[in-house]
Amino acid sequence: MDKKEALKKIAKRLRIYSLKMTTEAGSGHPTTCLSMAELIACLFFDEMKYNVKNPYDWANDEFVLSKGHAAPILWAAYAEAGIIQKKELMNLRKISSTLEGHPTPRMKWVKAATGSLGQGLSVGVGMALAMKLGKSSARVYVMMGDGECAEGAVWEAANTASYLKLDNLCAIVDVNRLGQSEATMHGHDMSSYEKKFRAFGWDVMKIDGHDVGQILKAFENARLSDKPTVILAKTTKGKGVSFIEDKNGWHGKPLKENDLKIALDELGAMPEIDSRKYVKTPEKANDPGFIKRFSFKKNIYEGKVPTRRAYGNALLNLGKINNAVISLDGDVKNSTYSEDFFKKYPERSFQIYIAEQNMVGMGIGIAAKGFIPFIATFAAFLSRAHDQIRMAAYSFSNLKLVGSHVGISIGADGPSQMGLEDLGIFRAIPGCVVLYPCDAYSSEGCVESMVRYKGLAYLRTTRPATPLLYSKGEKFPIGGSKVLRKSENDKALIIAAGITVFEALKAYEDLKDENIMVSVMDAYSIQPIDKENIIRSAEASGRKVITVEDHYPHGGLGDAVASALGGKADIISLAVSNLPRSGKPEELMDKYGISADHIKKAVRKAVNGKW
Amino acid sequence: MDKKEALKKIAKRLRIYSLKMTTEAGSGHPTTCLSMAELIACLFFDEMKYNVKNPYDWANDEFVLSKGHAAPILWAAYAEAGIIQKKELMNLRKISSTLEGHPTPRMKWVKAATGSLGQGLSVGVGMALAMKLGKSSARVYVMMGDGECAEGAVWEAANTASYLKLDNLCAIVDVNRLGQSEATMHGHDMSSYEKKFRAFGWDVMKIDGHDVGQILKAFENARLSDKPTVILAKTTKGKGVSFIEDKNGWHGKPLKENDLKIALDELGAMPEIDSRKYVKTPEKANDPGFIKRFSFKKNIYEGKVPTRRAYGNALLNLGKINNAVISLDGDVKNSTYSEDFFKKYPERSFQIYIAEQNMVGMGIGIAAKGFIPFIATFAAFLSRAHDQIRMAAYSFSNLKLVGSHVGISIGADGPSQMGLEDLGIFRAIPGCVVLYPCDAYSSEGCVESMVRYKGLAYLRTTRPATPLLYSKGEKFPIGGSKVLRKSENDKALIIAAGITVFEALKAYEDLKDENIMVSVMDAYSIQPIDKENIIRSAEASGRKVITVEDHYPHGGLGDAVASALGGKADIISLAVSNLPRSGKPEELMDKYGISADHIKKAVRKAVNGKW
Repeated sequence: MDKKEALKKIAKRLRIYSLKMTTEAGSGHPTTCLSMAELIACLFFDEMKYNVKNPYDWANDEFVLSKGHAAPILWAAYAEAGIIQKKELMNLRKISSTLEGHPTPRMKWVKAATGSLGQGLSVGVGMALAMKLGKSSARVYVMMGDGECAEGAVWEAANTASYLKLDNLCAIVDVNRLGQSEATMHGHDMSSYEKKFRAFGWDVMKIDGHDVGQILKAFENARLSDKPTVILAKTTKGKGVSFIEDKNGWHGKPLKENDLKIALDELGAMPEIDSRKYVKTPEKANDPGFIKRFSFKKNIYEGKVPTRRAYGNALLNLGKINNAVISLDGDVKNSTYSEDFFKKYPERSFQIYIAEQNMVGMGIGIAAKGFIPFIATFAAFLSRAHDQIRMAAYSFSNLKLVGSHVGISIGADGPSQMGLEDLGIFRAIPGCVVLYPCDAYSSEGCVESMVRYKGLAYLRTTRPATPLLYSKGEKFPIGGSKVLRKSENDKALIIAAGITVFEALKAYEDLKDENIMVSVMDAYSIQPIDKENIIRSAEASGRKVITVEDHYPHGGLGDAVASALGGKADIISLAVSNLPRSGKPEELMDKYGISADHIKKAVRKAVNGKW
Repeated sequence: MDKKEALKKIAKRLRIYSLKMTTEAGSGHPTTCLSMAELIACLFFDEMKYNVKNPYDWANDEFVLSKGHAAPILWAAYAEAGIIQKKELMNLRKISSTLEGHPTPRMKWVKAATGSLGQGLSVGVGMALAMKLGKSSARVYVMMGDGECAEGAVWEAANTASYLKLDNLCAIVDVNRLGQSEATMHGHDMSSYEKKFRAFGWDVMKIDGHDVGQILKAFENARLSDKPTVILAKTTKGKGVSFIEDKNGWHGKPLKENDLKIALDELGAMPEIDSRKYVKTPEKANDPGFIKRFSFKKNIYEGKVPTRRAYGNALLNLGKINNAVISLDGDVKNSTYSEDFFKKYPERSFQIYIAEQNMVGMGIGIAAKGFIPFIATFAAFLSRAHDQIRMAAYSFSNLKLVGSHVGISIGADGPSQMGLEDLGIFRAIPGCVVLYPCDAYSSEGCVESMVRYKGLAYLRTTRPATPLLYSKGEKFPIGGSKVLRKSENDKALIIAAGITVFEALKAYEDLKDENIMVSVMDAYSIQPIDKENIIRSAEASGRKVITVEDHYPHGGLGDAVASALGGKADIISLAVSNLPRSGKPEELMDKYGISADHIKKAVRKAVNGKW
């Protein structure tokens, strides 16, 4: 059979499945699948090379469905390729099926969860970069919607892709003109998209997205380009079924049983073809040969040292023994101290400039290919990538995030630069490890713990230099804590982390002079928190607990301790109680209620029973 | 004196102040001020018109310093204009001064906090739109850095500005080539910026940013354009002081005392000029004549109604009586139900397309001009704008945000679409009101409460239809709660909100059959939470509290209740305990532990004392 005829047949099969699946599920986005049937047919059954037996084969081309709501046609393509059974398609969106409403890696061929629009291109940029690093000659294809091109994250990714000369990256925009609630800003004005991508340094091709010949030619040309290439495919939403074609009001709506019958009649019988024969298998390729060792050499410190400085040292030494470790920076590497790694391992260091969303999205793609990306910026600016962090969780991503300059202890730069909600962002994610060292040694120990953990992990570092409490090589296991002061007569337990550990220790000394003995705990593992030790220590300290943190009152240490105690002790939670301002660190810590003086007051209040 | 000569003198004065201020403060970014001294001199002392006596004068041109780290030169300009005293400049970054390290509206001429880069253009777009709405002929100027042009939010804003034909908007990019840790991606390649802005539909001018003549001419041309205009100003970081000019490693570093002396010697004596004489005062202008009434007409409901549907109705009726109310949509208005307002009040409705960051940033600008923007999208996608929401707080913004499709109760669409961390985002912000209605009547009541509140407020709405619990016109004051079930023999208190209220009521009925009586509370005001009523009700129910919420365990209702109780009762917190997946709402609520069955189990556990 002629290739083009075969691909047209496959496209029709994909259409029929997409319609049936969504009607069976009672929800989903059939019209957005129909506009890209020819594109998917050409991609999966001619252009891409992949080993149907192994989604992790290093030789595979990769595919990212950025317009995640088109999941049904992706599942249908995998069924046509023989990767999943066709009968499984009718389980779309069921709780028992991996064929979710939007793709997640519960289905093994999906490497990154999508469905929050405008993120897929960053994932593809990360994958394409990882492939170059791993000397793969495979390619990455990202299928985007036209509506999502309004997301700034797309242009961050586009910028980086051309800067990094990722000629192994091909984006396809399914320009079907219609968004969810109305037409897109540019409708079918293809030149608007063309101008933008060209301005961002991409090769651009404009085609009829339903013309198999044009599609195949475009992919061929894209392979020859020395730039990232975007194929702007003019398409019709709902293509193939006349009563929904190019009509507003059909986004995210499955056909009713009757309408489905009419639609299937119009499309005609399911074409007979064994699509599996058209899948192209790649040549064998060697994987990058990762040496993933974790026990890096620790440093000796003297005097006061910022935890961020120790993070930089740890990353450098980790990089020496683990060639999977990658460092990404958003133009603050001299503040986060990623810069030493950048100098020593320029080939594994990437300047993403001030584009945090793309930096995290790329991290998901890089991690999906087996590398271990460390992404460091100011904690405040990680909030810029909150949606990408959220999607990293649903991607089960092995991403390591580092937020520096946390809290009011940064001082005079003012609130815009203070990370005061970061613990809340990361604690909200089930399974996300959150570590918050207070000195240089614990910083190094926490880096080792986070890299040993396979999954999302966050390290919180502090701007000012802090004294040394621990010693070289001490372990800081996930879920642990350190009791720093303890006696037989403790009347209360102070739980601190990061910079407030030192305020707690100051308070301890003063209270001791007043004959009030207290326990002091460093809860460096904010999540999971050391529930057992907290309960035990609270019980040994009169069930009076004071928490103190350089973070807003909600989402951080105080909440974590309250949740661990579940009512087993009285708690006073000290945290940054109001919108802060510029000032000196010590002034601010006093003004906003987290200094040693406030801790002492809280302890006295607790001990005197006046809550 | 020749105007150009005067402006050059003023520029030099601004340079001298910027250097002195930052050395005095011991921190700050003098070199980034020096690159824009001529631009600021021309803006504040020739181009812009403003009434120095009234920052809120509707006739004023507006200025947004998107590159917020250049705050010192902004403060110096205000001092030169006679708005603040010159001696105040030496209090830069002190805790007692409103001249913070990055601008905040503590200084009254600042309308939006900046310092998280790439956000100022959205604020300016919002202001320019508000001015058009209010029939002002004034203009908006946004001063940007080159480095921040890597942020996608800039391109979201650029896209919207040209789409909305904001010819009253002028952006200036201070292309000084150097970022914080190294050169920017494009350095002094002005054509890279030019291509991008042109592709996004802007008029572009490229000038020498130190040439006063070119600057004045560019502003003049910008005023004549029928598009938003960007002036790409090629500048030298550190300009005027040879040993820091165009040198990497000088970002965010004040000069040491000795270096300051050398720099001042090079710059020469402070030029004698009374800059106040060059400030241009605008013609009188009428403000938009806001009618800010809040008591809108309430609806009557029957059967089951989604809270999001009632939100749409409330917004529509509010719009009828309050002409300051504006609706912004990110192409989900048919899901959030903003669409009725869009149909009825198209002139106050704005389609921002899928660009949530810009939508929130614009909201800050719109609110700064006295309008009341309601911004509704899926709660999950508000995480995309977390950094802008953070900055809205520091802008003391009267922004109303609405997140629909919260939690696992959305069902089959899967986790990417589920708002599960939104309560945490908004509760983290001190002073932010968070309301979470469970039925149509409470939804309308909450809308009235949030619009009456002057400040940041968040409404959480639910996808599925829910039964009616309350009646037309019932009040839902901020900080309140409703006790739905109560007896003399209550053994526990169930605190729920939104969809889980109905699970709690189901559990109540079943437990009653088992002769276990419980109180049931609807904690619709998540922040501030009704601490008093919670404590009182817990004490009347055996000090056993069960919270249940369609949200992740951290940051939401459970934490709010635990914090309110502060150890005064035992608590079992039920929440979405793991990364969810696609499925039916009821299946998911059971699988992830927030259904009536789970509540019953928790109550039995609590009552039997086995925690």
